[in-house]
Amino acid sequence: MQPPWSVTEPVQAYRTVRERTEQLAAPLGPEDQVVQSMPDASPTKWHRAHTTWFFEEFLLGAGVAGTDPSYRFLFNSYYEAVGPRQARADRGLLTRPTVAEVAAYRTCVDEAVTALLEGGPHPLLELGLHHEEQHQELLLMDVAHLFSVHPLRPAYAADGPHPTASTGSAGWIDADGGTVEVGHAGSGFAFDNEGPRHEVLLRPYRLADRPVTCGEWCEFVDDGGYVRPELWLSDGWGEVRTRGWEAPAYWRRLDGDWHVTTLGGERRVVGDEPVVHVSYYEADAFARWRGARLPTEFEWEAVAAARWDDPREQWHGSVWQWTASAYLPYPGFRPAAGAVGEYNGKFMVNQHVLRGGCCATPPGHSRPTYRNFFHPEARWAFSGLRLATDR
Amino acid sequence: MQPPWSVTEPVQAYRTVRERTEQLAAPLGPEDQVVQSMPDASPTKWHRAHTTWFFEEFLLGAGVAGTDPSYRFLFNSYYEAVGPRQARADRGLLTRPTVAEVAAYRTCVDEAVTALLEGGPHPLLELGLHHEEQHQELLLMDVAHLFSVHPLRPAYAADGPHPTASTGSAGWIDADGGTVEVGHAGSGFAFDNEGPRHEVLLRPYRLADRPVTCGEWCEFVDDGGYVRPELWLSDGWGEVRTRGWEAPAYWRRLDGDWHVTTLGGERRVVGDEPVVHVSYYEADAFARWRGARLPTEFEWEAVAAARWDDPREQWHGSVWQWTASAYLPYPGFRPAAGAVGEYNGKFMVNQHVLRGGCCATPPGHSRPTYRNFFHPEARWAFSGLRLATDR
Amino acid sequence: MQPPWSVTEPVQAYRTVRERTEQLAAPLGPEDQVVQSMPDASPTKWHRAHTTWFFEEFLLGAGVAGTDPSYRFLFNSYYEAVGPRQARADRGLLTRPTVAEVAAYRTCVDEAVTALLEGGPHPLLELGLHHEEQHQELLLMDVAHLFSVHPLRPAYAADGPHPTASTGSAGWIDADGGTVEVGHAGSGFAFDNEGPRHEVLLRPYRLADRPVTCGEWCEFVDDGGYVRPELWLSDGWGEVRTRGWEAPAYWRRLDGDWHVTTLGGERRVVGDEPVVHVSYYEADAFARWRGARLPTEFEWEAVAAARWDDPREQWHGSVWQWTASAYLPYPGFRPAAGAVGEYNGKFMVNQHVLRGGCCATPPGHSRPTYRNFFHPEARWAFSGLRLATDR
Amino acid sequence: MQPPWSVTEPVQAYRTVRERTEQLAAPLGPEDQVVQSMPDASPTKWHRAHTTWFFEEFLLGAGVAGTDPSYRFLFNSYYEAVGPRQARADRGLLTRPTVAEVAAYRTCVDEAVTALLEGGPHPLLELGLHHEEQHQELLLMDVAHLFSVHPLRPAYAADGPHPTASTGSAGWIDADGGTVEVGHAGSGFAFDNEGPRHEVLLRPYRLADRPVTCGEWCEFVDDGGYVRPELWLSDGWGEVRTRGWEAPAYWRRLDGDWHVTTLGGERRVVGDEPVVHVSYYEADAFARWRGARLPTEFEWEAVAAARWDDPREQWHGSVWQWTASAYLPYPGFRPAAGAVGEYNGKFMVNQHVLRGGCCATPPGHSRPTYRNFFHPEARWAFSGLRLATDR
Repeated sequence: MQPPWSVTEPVQAYRTVRERTEQLAAPLGPEDQVVQSMPDASPTKWHRAHTTWFFEEFLLGAGVAGTDPSYRFLFNSYYEAVGPRQARADRGLLTRPTVAEVAAYRTCVDEAVTALLEGGPHPLLELGLHHEEQHQELLLMDVAHLFSVHPLRPAYAADGPHPTASTGSAGWIDADGGTVEVGHAGSGFAFDNEGPRHEVLLRPYRLADRPVTCGEWCEFVDDGGYVRPELWLSDGWGEVRTRGWEAPAYWRRLDGDWHVTTLGGERRVVGDEPVVHVSYYEADAFARWRGARLPTEFEWEAVAAARWDDPREQWHGSVWQWTASAYLPYPGFRPAAGAVGEYNGKFMVNQHVLRGGCCATPPGHSRPTYRNFFHPEARWAFSGLRLATDR
Repeated sequence: MQPPWSVTEPVQAYRTVRERTEQLAAPLGPEDQVVQSMPDASPTKWHRAHTTWFFEEFLLGAGVAGTDPSYRFLFNSYYEAVGPRQARADRGLLTRPTVAEVAAYRTCVDEAVTALLEGGPHPLLELGLHHEEQHQELLLMDVAHLFSVHPLRPAYAADGPHPTASTGSAGWIDADGGTVEVGHAGSGFAFDNEGPRHEVLLRPYRLADRPVTCGEWCEFVDDGGYVRPELWLSDGWGEVRTRGWEAPAYWRRLDGDWHVTTLGGERRVVGDEPVVHVSYYEADAFARWRGARLPTEFEWEAVAAARWDDPREQWHGSVWQWTASAYLPYPGFRPAAGAVGEYNGKFMVNQHVLRGGCCATPPGHSRPTYRNFFHPEARWAFSGLRLATDR
Repeated sequence: MQPPWSVTEPVQAYRTVRERTEQLAAPLGPEDQVVQSMPDASPTKWHRAHTTWFFEEFLLGAGVAGTDPSYRFLFNSYYEAVGPRQARADRGLLTRPTVAEVAAYRTCVDEAVTALLEGGPHPLLELGLHHEEQHQELLLMDVAHLFSVHPLRPAYAADGPHPTASTGSAGWIDADGGTVEVGHAGSGFAFDNEGPRHEVLLRPYRLADRPVTCGEWCEFVDDGGYVRPELWLSDGWGEVRTRGWEAPAYWRRLDGDWHVTTLGGERRVVGDEPVVHVSYYEADAFARWRGARLPTEFEWEAVAAARWDDPREQWHGSVWQWTASAYLPYPGFRPAAGAVGEYNGKFMVNQHVLRGGCCATPPGHSRPTYRNFFHPEARWAFSGLRLATDR
Repeated sequence: MQPPWSVTEPVQAYRTVRERTEQLAAPLGPEDQVVQSMPDASPTKWHRAHTTWFFEEFLLGAGVAGTDPSYRFLFNSYYEAVGPRQARADRGLLTRPTVAEVAAYRTCVDEAVTALLEGGPHPLLELGLHHEEQHQELLLMDVAHLFSVHPLRPAYAADGPHPTASTGSAGWIDADGGTVEVGHAGSGFAFDNEGPRHEVLLRPYRLADRPVTCGEWCEFVDDGGYVRPELWLSDGWGEVRTRGWEAPAYWRRLDGDWHVTTLGGERRVVGDEPVVHVSYYEADAFARWRGARLPTEFEWEAVAAARWDDPREQWHGSVWQWTASAYLPYPGFRPAAGAVGEYNGKFMVNQHVLRGGCCATPPGHSRPTYRNFFHPEARWAFSGLRLATDR
């Protein structure tokens, strides 16, 4: 799928991306936009302001006329080189600036950036747009979490993003392995963590031709998946016991049937839909239960690169897919100089790579080399899995 | 001071109290009204809805036409007899109903209550009005906390409630003690925890003729008040060390001067104003430092009852005053039957009594027998102290 | 009951108390004596060393020949005036000095104290002996806790202290109340917190003629005592839910019967024995369930003083009895000057008073004015209750 | 270095390993052997019993005559397939069985195993011996931690294990990379996590010819290593701030000089000794500060395999060396069937691999394919680092 914008038309690209954020926020009132439902999630208002700050800080330089100097503190996410900032877990305390003031901030920066781009391209524009697209997805994830912990489970929108049902039962795709090139190369945009492109050695393996479905997950649950320690990594079993997991996040039984809270509200679990909101631990345990395993990120990429747009196989657009690979730098990886060098590299520990892209990912945002990453216990992303085996 | 309403005119009383709540909420936008800044504080919106629920539940009976049945869950505070409820620490997750929907809920219940009262008095009206007045004060306290943890320290209102400066230096009021009657009796309204009226024996003692001021507190700080363990109760010293206390809550040094964040914004500490936002531990340590002590609640009441409206002595209207008395039932205390019996009695442990009334207390709400209570580490109330000594 | 020693014979008194500590430690091996089973409990070895340090510090002066200067740090409990000390929760990290070295420390200090006392009386001897007796009881309580959390529930000693069974069913003792003198006066020893003696006013009331028994507690359990929130203080109900309480500490059901772990090992609960290891919250809830209440400490003392040695009524020697009174200073209370002034006063907040004395209290140690105190959630003392009602 | 035993002489091998454990425990009294100084560390007594239980359970079968059936609960470490067990964090509550009883347990099992082995070899003997050797190292690590948190910092033994000083300044070893075989193959013993042997692709790189020294670490400290966020992974910087790290574990400044607590007691830091007790985060930050990086475990292995016994290069025998590799299964890895399959596989998440072997590792225990692993914040192992760079 192609993105609906191209950096070769910078002003239009900028407007397209920025307007999409506003559209995503539109169903949410001020109350919905300010609350932080857990330390890892951010308020919608904060996403809208932070993405704006990114353009101000890195394209315009801090101190754009009409903006508030305090925003440099309030809306810096984690850039140590920029300076001190509001603690991540305390973003929900920022009732000011109001939603309307954040909208005005967006307008003010939009005008300045547009003026800048009318004068010519900017080297960090593309990064800023992809950055904003990442926050578009985070915004949806965070809203889904917010509404999942509300006792009434309100809907974000009747047609809110949701994984598409699969079209058939899973078969295997055979791959020969061998020496394979992975990682990004070439002229298109990629984040720094996707490179350098390099060779890896793979053994022969198989990948499932679609993600695991909710129906298959119900079998796992019914077969004692959440009560059999032998299926789990030790840390995963600890989470199961401590947190009382007995199904994916946002699932609960009502009148004997599993229901799931989605961005469209709560409804019955549909067997053909890919399972989502599972942690790495659950994905790993499911795979073991099935006598399979999770693929490495390179096994995943080697096959996906050649079949990226086959919709029956759901490589992207439906669920992020946990891989067996820890999130680590590629050989020869070097972060960029300056503050933007903090973008990815400093998070390369304690996380696992997910590949693909989900229903909440902006169209065209992902690619076969894209590396998403979360802690192994995280469940609020649209995270599912695809099985692999040795041949 | 007289309250601006009388229960002998029920409709007018109801409207007066209800409108005052709305006036207090008026300076706050939807963002300000939904966020919960700590587990002990509640969002403004929740206060507005909970006080409404109280009238619905106890005067009208749950299920008033036009209201949402879920509100019985969302806005029940702690009444086990009513049923399950949103956990206190999670009130800030309730982005829905919106502020506008809560306003509509208020209107709907107001109409039904007004209709009810036009048919005659209701035995729980007065309790409901005093209950709402308590939440008016909580609303202001909670907003003060919310804005105190915002890095920009916004003002609630330029003329937000603040303790009035004292008019002179403190002298002592001598009291003979002996057998004294304390507690509420008679026909006026009082909460159940103010009775039964009973006799207590007091030794001769002295009470200061005004609360401790910020200027005196600065002397305490300068004399090492927060670094000398011998001044403190053991649990209090633990709080000092764990939480890094070095002055009252909402104080910080800027350019060498103590500043305080008030409902009117941040400004220099004024020496003649009563100190406020101190914990029981701090009040107790200050008294020890001064070679004095805190009065018991009965010592306080015995003097205050006779001098209640002497404004130079600030018995009420400025700061709540910590007493040495633990919050316990009076001899012969019996909670009311039914859910309203949970109003006070079940909190009678682990807290200390404060007497008086503060700048955020609705006019006429307090009286000499009034018993306020907080945990000894609490600092977000407008809590100060008045010294006592033996004679 | 008389204590087995008298301060009029100081050397003999000293030896008697010191030897009793050693006898209590005798059934315990080095492993048992070094482990700390929870932050509030101390290792036996630490009790043996700390009581010795008390004599060294306050009678001899720190630095007795043959002792280790580090002990002043290791075995100071909470005396800020003496200097820094091992954190309370970290006493279990002190594998050195060994149990044998602590025994040698005791011998060394014993010789020096004995020599001192042979030269004449010392004003702090009596305090030191009562202090050591308090630690004798703590030693047993702490061992009981240590063995209760061992999966095999070992016995301290077959005949370890245990509350004596009651001899009959409970009746009421009528008391007229009125102006009553309470608190210690006269020449006998008392802790500072027992005075000054003063008058209090009491209403007519009744006290049960014996403590509540295990059989009665079983009725409470069977009647839903631990699942009915209306019986509980709010903080108590929180503990029930958070900690999963469903019976007194050290109780569990085995094959359908309640068993209790005692210092003599685990055995069936005996209906006629006083219940023990209940928190203030449980005591309060039980009383409410029975339509009664807990007595104040003064109601308790006024009756107990006149009947102290009636064994059928178990005023002491069996269980400590929770009272409704918060632990606060008496009117006119002043701590002693110097470090020993930290003995009691600085703990006068957040606790409730227990009266009486238990099976683990040294003979003759307690008296009718004795004030024991624990936090309301504490259960590892031999804490039970006696009911009261208004007349 | 060769191990001092061979499985071809099973009885002698068994005795050799078992006696070494006893020798390691010999300097420790019962008090030292029972205390658990943190949840991740185990008491010496527990190590002695658990290694014995391993032989009982897996060679003899539970229920050897003369042993106590409760030991199956008490001394099972983490084998879900064997059954329930004492929680890891509660091993320090086990004052019983005593040290002497554990010694008797060892003797009893030793006799039965010896008798078994006299009848012929056993397939799990070798695993049991390597397992016990691992616990020999853990015993020393855990004792080092125990004594490090004792305020007097006692010595385990004057000649306790300590990293050997390096003989010269670091140079680089060039490696060509390419397709390299890694992992264990062949007839010698290896743990399951060391295989299957497989090929990996490596780029040209360099490895330092010795580990980083304390002198170099002091330069890092002096250059602001612990106060410059740009040097750290985000999670690592969080640890620095939260835990107040400013040097390796067990270091502190005394009179201006860095001192370190070792198994031989506290003494000045020696510049030529390899640094030890650093976390992965610190190792990673140090490498970044030096313009280098950590090697992957395969880069490390490829060079070490050819130079294993060059003592100037300290591949083993001095410090474990953090690698950039997350601890994950090798391609084709399958745990063994049955309970012993829980040995390694279920821990393959959230940890990083260390290679080499340290001063506390039993002689001959390690090999070039050996994979040790710890969480990235762990510092109580003898963990250091060796630098790498790209060529």
